[in-house]
Amino acid sequence: MAKEGVDMTGETEYMIDRNAGKEAVNVESPSNAKEMRAVVLAGFGGLNKLRVTKKAMPEPQDGEVKIRVKACGLNFLDLMVRQGNIDNPPKTPLVPGFECCGIVESVAENTHGFEIGDRVMAFMNYNAWAEVVCTPVDFVYKMPDDMTFTEAAAFSLNFVAAYMMLFEVASLREGMSVLVHSAGGAVGQAVAQLCSTVPNVTVFGIASCFKHTSIKDSVTHLFDRNADYIQEVKKISTDGVDIVLDCLCGENTGKSLSLLKPLGTYILYGASNMVTGETKSFFSFAKSWWQVEKVNPIKLYEENKVIAGFSLLNLLFKQGGCNLVKSAMDKLLILYEQKKIRPVVDSLWALEEVKEAMQRIHDRGNIGKLILDVEKSPTPLMANDSTETSEAGEEEEEPEGDNDSKERMPFIH
Amino acid sequence: MAKEGVDMTGETEYMIDRNAGKEAVNVESPSNAKEMRAVVLAGFGGLNKLRVTKKAMPEPQDGEVKIRVKACGLNFLDLMVRQGNIDNPPKTPLVPGFECCGIVESVAENTHGFEIGDRVMAFMNYNAWAEVVCTPVDFVYKMPDDMTFTEAAAFSLNFVAAYMMLFEVASLREGMSVLVHSAGGAVGQAVAQLCSTVPNVTVFGIASCFKHTSIKDSVTHLFDRNADYIQEVKKISTDGVDIVLDCLCGENTGKSLSLLKPLGTYILYGASNMVTGETKSFFSFAKSWWQVEKVNPIKLYEENKVIAGFSLLNLLFKQGGCNLVKSAMDKLLILYEQKKIRPVVDSLWALEEVKEAMQRIHDRGNIGKLILDVEKSPTPLMANDSTETSEAGEEEEEPEGDNDSKERMPFIH
Repeated sequence: MAKEGVDMTGETEYMIDRNAGKEAVNVESPSNAKEMRAVVLAGFGGLNKLRVTKKAMPEPQDGEVKIRVKACGLNFLDLMVRQGNIDNPPKTPLVPGFECCGIVESVAENTHGFEIGDRVMAFMNYNAWAEVVCTPVDFVYKMPDDMTFTEAAAFSLNFVAAYMMLFEVASLREGMSVLVHSAGGAVGQAVAQLCSTVPNVTVFGIASCFKHTSIKDSVTHLFDRNADYIQEVKKISTDGVDIVLDCLCGENTGKSLSLLKPLGTYILYGASNMVTGETKSFFSFAKSWWQVEKVNPIKLYEENKVIAGFSLLNLLFKQGGCNLVKSAMDKLLILYEQKKIRPVVDSLWALEEVKEAMQRIHDRGNIGKLILDVEKSPTPLMANDSTETSEAGEEEEEPEGDNDSKERMPFIH
Repeated sequence: MAKEGVDMTGETEYMIDRNAGKEAVNVESPSNAKEMRAVVLAGFGGLNKLRVTKKAMPEPQDGEVKIRVKACGLNFLDLMVRQGNIDNPPKTPLVPGFECCGIVESVAENTHGFEIGDRVMAFMNYNAWAEVVCTPVDFVYKMPDDMTFTEAAAFSLNFVAAYMMLFEVASLREGMSVLVHSAGGAVGQAVAQLCSTVPNVTVFGIASCFKHTSIKDSVTHLFDRNADYIQEVKKISTDGVDIVLDCLCGENTGKSLSLLKPLGTYILYGASNMVTGETKSFFSFAKSWWQVEKVNPIKLYEENKVIAGFSLLNLLFKQGGCNLVKSAMDKLLILYEQKKIRPVVDSLWALEEVKEAMQRIHDRGNIGKLILDVEKSPTPLMANDSTETSEAGEEEEEPEGDNDSKERMPFIH
């Protein structure tokens, strides 16, 4: 991962500079009702494979709504997709993105439950990063009145995943303890907030040191990912933790398995369908768990442990789980309206800034969610200054709020 | 398993006949307050390694109670122990048995919560098959007034295991479906009853054909273990089942993995710490799940599946889980008092009949639980007639009840 990071960074900065001009042309071309802007991945690879271009305006089929998109969520998975590091990758060119929100612009035949003008958030099986999307209503949810589009784009995937892992896969109850890796990420922050809705839950968070000041109030105990946090957790909780949430993307996969209490649940989640090359750490983990001399398959049984995998997108788009997800979303929206949870937004980006946004996720710079703000104008790129956000081009819908400073926070490098 | 069964049966019948005389001598020796009768396993091996003998009367240590045992539970695990097919086996000679019930006869210093005369059931880390046992109160539970000793001996291990698997490891909820192997066994019957306490739960049971008449009312759908039940279940429930309970002892381990719904939980349970020789099928399963070309570790994640191991005895005696177990027992006793659950007893046996009882479990002949009735006199063994139960020697505590016919049911061969 580290090596790949170094390689990509060089390529990235070059491509950003080289492509800046082209994109500006696309963005500024006149609008046409038959077309819309979208981020397109021309082929799998580095950041240079991404561009913003015009696509034919989609029209909704039976059972679908057409949504004028306001904001989209950006996830680590999108980086995996870009590099083609997924199993059975779709054909390129494609429009990336798995979640967005906006306003229902039209409703097809046999489409129930939604009306033109509804403010909605939606899961997409790709194609989310566009000005307009069409999707079956199975994957669309009405936004609460007081939820902003920025919040909605930061809400759906991360909170639903966090909720289903904590309450459906595991059974988070009063007095339990949870260890979460990448505590500063969007899922990690959602996990921390959801844990705080249950009495007396202890959250152990793992995060890079530089994030500690920002997120220390969101968890009970916070540890540096480079420290020996296994020992630190054991000092505090000698018998371990009840739930471990371990992102498949992380280099620490499996490391905290020994922290699991009897009857505890270890959940592997993260980017979908990763191929071998990206999951060396996971394979190492699996090997040590299942094959090492003194650790045979009986260990799971002997130790009374539970191991689970969770992929929200597979559940939604491959396994017919939309009713399960709807049920989780309903419960989450109640918690939102009770002001018990609130998505943490790291920063807003124009579609044309998707490369910088991806780089920020790649560098683990974010605290909370990165949002593609469809109505935001791109920051003019300058030589040696391609990573600074701009105050220009704020969308009208963007309300004043206590997230403002976070949304505009400068990069931390 | 089949081959071993054939081998053992021959040996077994021979040993029963050869040893019958010796045991009768032991049993009829005069009682002495300094001694007590117990089943002793002289060494690991066949049935011939078991005998009933006198042992020094145990005395309770700090925090322990001394229990005058009325009845003991017999489990498949006891057969595994007898053969030494467990990891890190204890030294022989040993007194087998992991559960019993009786009356508190004395209470040591610093022992709280129990008084002389209390009717109790207890988990033991071995040593249960004796007239008198001493054990820390952490593993002792008061019996409801209307629970018989026979019921109590059939209750603790199987119902606690079934309860914790359904409600702690998995989260059985209204409308879910459960597949249980060995539906006619004591755990299977406990699972079926507990499922019936939750609205609208579908239970798919797998059992040998000859048990179907007896147990068909306890489950929703019943399939022959030799039939293609995977296909049969899929016909009824195309999207699979929510929970699979798979006994590690069975030859079908792993077979029903494909039946698991997304977010479903597959629980491996059964005999503790089995060594490789006994678990070929489990290793085959593990291999196919984790290593076969198209089934790599990512599969768990891709498919949104949960795999769990459950060993009640390890939880109790190695992992400090007595409070978790106590909590489950409390809930179970409420269900018992509400007459929602009731242990199914297969048959009662004298301590001296432990070999025949074990043979019955080995042959999968039982429906529900086999009980060692400490006050029951052994049936005089006759050539070619070693498998018939007797009406003689009924204990005084044994009340009339609707289980009577089951307790006395003849063998089914």
